[in-house]
Amino acid sequence: MKQRYLATVAYDGKDFWGWQSQHHHRNVQDCIEEALAKFHPVYVEIVGSGRTDRGVHAKGQRFHFDSDLNMTCHQMMAAINCNLPEDVKVTAMEVVPSSFHCRFHATRKRYDYLINNGPYDLFLRNSHLFVKDILDIQQMRQASLLLIGEHDFSTFCANRTSEKENQVRTITRLEIIKTDHTIQMIFEGKGFLRYMVRMLAQTLIEVGRGRITIDQVQEMLEAKDKDACRFNAKPYGLYLMEVHYEN
Amino acid sequence: MKQRYLATVAYDGKDFWGWQSQHHHRNVQDCIEEALAKFHPVYVEIVGSGRTDRGVHAKGQRFHFDSDLNMTCHQMMAAINCNLPEDVKVTAMEVVPSSFHCRFHATRKRYDYLINNGPYDLFLRNSHLFVKDILDIQQMRQASLLLIGEHDFSTFCANRTSEKENQVRTITRLEIIKTDHTIQMIFEGKGFLRYMVRMLAQTLIEVGRGRITIDQVQEMLEAKDKDACRFNAKPYGLYLMEVHYEN
Repeated sequence: MKQRYLATVAYDGKDFWGWQSQHHHRNVQDCIEEALAKFHPVYVEIVGSGRTDRGVHAKGQRFHFDSDLNMTCHQMMAAINCNLPEDVKVTAMEVVPSSFHCRFHATRKRYDYLINNGPYDLFLRNSHLFVKDILDIQQMRQASLLLIGEHDFSTFCANRTSEKENQVRTITRLEIIKTDHTIQMIFEGKGFLRYMVRMLAQTLIEVGRGRITIDQVQEMLEAKDKDACRFNAKPYGLYLMEVHYEN
Repeated sequence: MKQRYLATVAYDGKDFWGWQSQHHHRNVQDCIEEALAKFHPVYVEIVGSGRTDRGVHAKGQRFHFDSDLNMTCHQMMAAINCNLPEDVKVTAMEVVPSSFHCRFHATRKRYDYLINNGPYDLFLRNSHLFVKDILDIQQMRQASLLLIGEHDFSTFCANRTSEKENQVRTITRLEIIKTDHTIQMIFEGKGFLRYMVRMLAQTLIEVGRGRITIDQVQEMLEAKDKDACRFNAKPYGLYLMEVHYEN
């Protein structure tokens, strides 16, 4: 009997060309499907909660798949993990109804953006964006208040092919936490446009270093114009932290 | 006029076969000497405060060298760093008297050993030893008290060729700090034998997981026998943190 499994997965984005299956480029989806193929008689496709771009990390990406091997969650997780490379690991597994859909039923996502803001620390070079200028956190927090809530985020989206799509999104949380030499920006919402978090992150960084004003952020947002924002933070500071499903 | 420079350097040990210059294997010393060669008319040799083994990291290794380019410390540091790969960077530079010696004058060194003790975190896989069993910190601290102070550490030394050397060393600090899912062990002393910190670290881990008793640690230490300890913690959890010089 087929069972649907929902898995949580962490991966270090450094050596992946993103989540999405594609020829000629190492990606997370293919890695996991190849691991499943090692102990399934048929090829099992997985469905992710969404894509992550090249170089972006995940601590709480989710995917679902169907299997008729009747394994317990613990067995399934162990079987996948022992067939995965060291930069991707399943961290949790549960059985869900066959009507459950990993992407369509996601109600909330959290992305974190991490910055090494202080003396350069080479141990953070693949996990944090290094920003030499000391950022003004208060200014960044002021600017973030403009972005929280429901807005048309066309300015903060790189996807030119989707211009006719609805680009209204809701940011329910945008928190900026400073600890010693590290800044953590937390973005939460139901969904995000392509590059949206990275473009907002870099925009807030530019506010923090005084290169643009809070008024300019307001103007950029109101412009609803793809050419109004040229900022896009490097992928290696970005983490998909959590995908939530309400019962 | 020749000037002697004292530099502090950080490196990610992952892709280095240790500090020491050697043929056919990438090492930190050669990397730095090659960087210096890029802007010196003669080959400049550097003297490290001591060696670190293959895979061991450093946040505060020190080395000295002589140059007659009459550059300021800031200029010298920038010139070296722009010729270094991304996994090694000079973090501080000062001018010292020509009588100063980086190894002979070191009065104290600090090594840290880092453990991922909790859910496996793949982002820590190259920087922390993963220990699945939850360690008993109180037991580890009890055992560490036996090791602090002046002892013959022959048991905790892998160097069979130096049997006639004095193997008495003094540990002035051995602190074990637990934060969330991470354990940090801090070792300080004037000097350490080869593998000593890693052997002590793994011995304390074995105490923490209940595989050996505190009495057994005492017996091992008193045995002064190279065959009395078979434990040696992986190099990628170890960091040379600081080298001190008293004026």
